[in-house]
Amino acid sequence: MARTQGSHSDITGPRIRDAALRLFARHGYAAVSMRQIAAEVGVQAGALYNYIPDKQSLLFELMQGHLAQLLEAFAELPRPEGALARLRAFTGFHIRFHLARPDAVFIAYMELRNLSPENFAAIEASRQRYEGLLESILTDGIAEGVLAPPDPKLATRAVIAMLNGVNTWYREGGRLTLDEVEAIYWDMVRKALGG
Amino acid sequence: MARTQGSHSDITGPRIRDAALRLFARHGYAAVSMRQIAAEVGVQAGALYNYIPDKQSLLFELMQGHLAQLLEAFAELPRPEGALARLRAFTGFHIRFHLARPDAVFIAYMELRNLSPENFAAIEASRQRYEGLLESILTDGIAEGVLAPPDPKLATRAVIAMLNGVNTWYREGGRLTLDEVEAIYWDMVRKALGG
Repeated sequence: MARTQGSHSDITGPRIRDAALRLFARHGYAAVSMRQIAAEVGVQAGALYNYIPDKQSLLFELMQGHLAQLLEAFAELPRPEGALARLRAFTGFHIRFHLARPDAVFIAYMELRNLSPENFAAIEASRQRYEGLLESILTDGIAEGVLAPPDPKLATRAVIAMLNGVNTWYREGGRLTLDEVEAIYWDMVRKALGG
Repeated sequence: MARTQGSHSDITGPRIRDAALRLFARHGYAAVSMRQIAAEVGVQAGALYNYIPDKQSLLFELMQGHLAQLLEAFAELPRPEGALARLRAFTGFHIRFHLARPDAVFIAYMELRNLSPENFAAIEASRQRYEGLLESILTDGIAEGVLAPPDPKLATRAVIAMLNGVNTWYREGGRLTLDEVEAIYWDMVRKALGG
């Protein structure tokens, strides 16, 4: 029986992205076929192409969507007075946003190698926008005399790498609550940057 | 023409591991077949099984070999007096060891999901041995009164994640020399740990 695909596109599009996210995170982009994604969604392989031109576009949409959400969520945070307060807010925000999306984070770092050069450049630009937000907190902190990182660019990368690490080991119900983890990382971030 | 495989095993074994490392890092473990590895080495697919029982063993050997080299290289470092000097030595060692082996590092983090449960447990044990080396430097530093990390276990993970991050952006010939990068990270590591 023929389906009227168009009418389902508002539900099917997100279901395809969810399925692709799960499969890419589990097996890796290169090992997953459009046929497998279709099977996971429960549609014919051919039907997938009504929603997405190819696998590369799907990977790009997932990574770009993740970064767009990250930038949007950060923009919606209240902007406290003072660079130290903003750095503390950034630290908590980054840990919690990423812990809530382990598959998207894993893909965002691991599948860079599988992006086309144009898509890689676009993803890099979004990532640099996010890094720029932290770097501007650091330069504000230097101007206010409350932070003294040895090199703001490297300090930005160091802080983000340190915070990303939480995703590799934190499990709910472990020795520490998320609030405790956040407080411990905030202490290390502040001190690392001379604050 | 039949080959006498045995006589080549001392060269062919390492060539197989090198080829697998390159291919796994480029395409991901799940996307690479034993046939592709054989083609990369320039032997028949069947010949591979004279050296390695299966792809899982190859992945495990690569990851375990990487961690064994890491532990061995660290054990061979001179052990300076004082926890601060040992922390500084650890920082420089970790950055340089990992920068020299980007493919092995990438696989060591990315392909954990593809290890069998027994192999995963063995890799975890090696990784914990390495983390333990840093953690014992931190507890020595606390005893000496030269370090005051908020939580030695989390601080260990935070430092390793921060240092691993260098692999994602450092390129020779960039703005900073490796000595400068090392000095900047040492400054941040020491301060983050209250030293």
